[in-house]
Amino acid sequence: MINKQILLKSRPTGWPTSDNFEVAETAVPQPGDGEMLLQTIYMSVDPYMRGRMNDMKSYVPPFQIGEPCQAGIVAKVVSSNGGPYEEGTYLTGMGLWANYMVTTGEGFQPVQAGLAPLSYYLGILGMPGMTAYVGLKGVAELKEGEQLFVSAASGAVGQVVGQIGKNMGCHVAGSAGSDDKIAYLKDELGFDAAFNYKTDDVFKAVKAANPNGIDVYFENVGGPVLEAVISNLNFNSRVALCGMISLYNATLEDMPAGPRNMALLVGRSVRMQGFIVSNYPDLCKEWIGVGAGWLKEGKLKYRESIAEGIENAPQAFIDMLQGKNFGKQVVRLADD
Amino acid sequence: MINKQILLKSRPTGWPTSDNFEVAETAVPQPGDGEMLLQTIYMSVDPYMRGRMNDMKSYVPPFQIGEPCQAGIVAKVVSSNGGPYEEGTYLTGMGLWANYMVTTGEGFQPVQAGLAPLSYYLGILGMPGMTAYVGLKGVAELKEGEQLFVSAASGAVGQVVGQIGKNMGCHVAGSAGSDDKIAYLKDELGFDAAFNYKTDDVFKAVKAANPNGIDVYFENVGGPVLEAVISNLNFNSRVALCGMISLYNATLEDMPAGPRNMALLVGRSVRMQGFIVSNYPDLCKEWIGVGAGWLKEGKLKYRESIAEGIENAPQAFIDMLQGKNFGKQVVRLADD
Repeated sequence: MINKQILLKSRPTGWPTSDNFEVAETAVPQPGDGEMLLQTIYMSVDPYMRGRMNDMKSYVPPFQIGEPCQAGIVAKVVSSNGGPYEEGTYLTGMGLWANYMVTTGEGFQPVQAGLAPLSYYLGILGMPGMTAYVGLKGVAELKEGEQLFVSAASGAVGQVVGQIGKNMGCHVAGSAGSDDKIAYLKDELGFDAAFNYKTDDVFKAVKAANPNGIDVYFENVGGPVLEAVISNLNFNSRVALCGMISLYNATLEDMPAGPRNMALLVGRSVRMQGFIVSNYPDLCKEWIGVGAGWLKEGKLKYRESIAEGIENAPQAFIDMLQGKNFGKQVVRLADD
Repeated sequence: MINKQILLKSRPTGWPTSDNFEVAETAVPQPGDGEMLLQTIYMSVDPYMRGRMNDMKSYVPPFQIGEPCQAGIVAKVVSSNGGPYEEGTYLTGMGLWANYMVTTGEGFQPVQAGLAPLSYYLGILGMPGMTAYVGLKGVAELKEGEQLFVSAASGAVGQVVGQIGKNMGCHVAGSAGSDDKIAYLKDELGFDAAFNYKTDDVFKAVKAANPNGIDVYFENVGGPVLEAVISNLNFNSRVALCGMISLYNATLEDMPAGPRNMALLVGRSVRMQGFIVSNYPDLCKEWIGVGAGWLKEGKLKYRESIAEGIENAPQAFIDMLQGKNFGKQVVRLADD
């Protein structure tokens, strides 16, 4: 058996390209004492990974050149050499861009294979879903009936953010990058308003989509959308800073101007808060129960883009950063 | 007796000029039933007033064209027609750019004339001092021994911020706009580091002044200093957004680029919070006790610039916005 891994070949400057990655073929590793061999079924590609490809201070160490990149995975225990889970168990946790890996199981949790499709544990019931819940409940303290706006609204996190808002009786508006996505937000997910930030006048569109201003902004993109949102924030509004995807690929010199109107944050007593989902373990656990319940009741919909085969993981990652995916992007490495 | 008032003649676009103001001479007003006639001794000019000269949504209504501008004042009760305070009492509160005004006394508090010079109630024991205390204690939750940075550090608010930090055992660094001010911060106020943002390389200077990063940034200026600070914020750091003086005079088109590196706020879990001092009445009261105590013990120093005569109020305001003052800018309208 061959184990394919995707290694970081070089650190991207600006947008990553396929040249920043290479495929390595090795033998399948052998689990040592107390370890298990995992086969990856699904792996996730997420915007935060772009940050980890830079060699800079952050909350987790950067990916190392010549080493496999890391990703959230759903994997099956192929064999256990005294490890904590039995052969055949499905686990989720932080793994590698690889078909196989060995682990003691630390940081992995078993998933209930019948509750939802396995890939959902990388999305709506995994880190992106938890991020949506933590950002709204723990960070922005969204209240019933408030005015909510979310950018990258059809993405892995954004589509959950919007639906949590609707389930809480909020006015929900969002932005996304294609007319298909806008139709999905309005027709399928029940958004009150949505616009295409690539073709609409962003400043006018944000205002029109949020006629009563914005109490909570779930920020995924940075750039002109952030600036337009700031001009429409209400008094005592909150901004949950989840990501700024428009900035991840810019070098410092190339970085677009930040919002010019930050002075408005002062007079309107705005709170803007960056957050890391793993700092809110209680809310993460709570979400798995809440989210699974809502899925069952039909109160949550969920859309994925699935790429096939580990060789396609770099391109799936690059495409996702450019917004070519529609819904949560995952890569299938083996049959469920 | 003549009452001189300074009226807002036109709304400034960009930097205000003397043409935006006019002097009106009227008779001294007569207090009605339950009212008092006040004579202004000192009036304050503050950066926030620039915002109130714009016709835009904020936490208080804008100044009206043809009406006297408003300001924090210290005034003496000249006569009372059944008002709440006796003739000769000194009061502080929100008044007018005028020698005389009538009031029911609502929003005015008596000041202890012997405790400190009367002008201090517009500065270190007034709104600017309260702003420093509220921003550090209520908003940024500064803890003993943390790394504190403040911009406009020799200004009305900044000099108090730095000294509170020193009294709390913090490492305190600051920026200001002249070498005299830097010398004052380091030699008189005990700042650990300070630099001249007009002559130094701001990015390098912020890094050098904060060798252990920044836990709390008290933000007064916006612009390049804010951007440089963001790059040096520690994990779980807090930014109290008090003002962004560099932006107050820019029209939207002219506004300088905002910070390009806002994406760093995400990974470092930074909390950035705009605030209005009047939303923290308990901390404001607390500060008068704490601040007066520290003044008495010699643990607080305080520097003012005093302009003479109401005719000079517009120029004092304009100069203050351009950083020509050194310490808290006030205008003396009558002898103490």
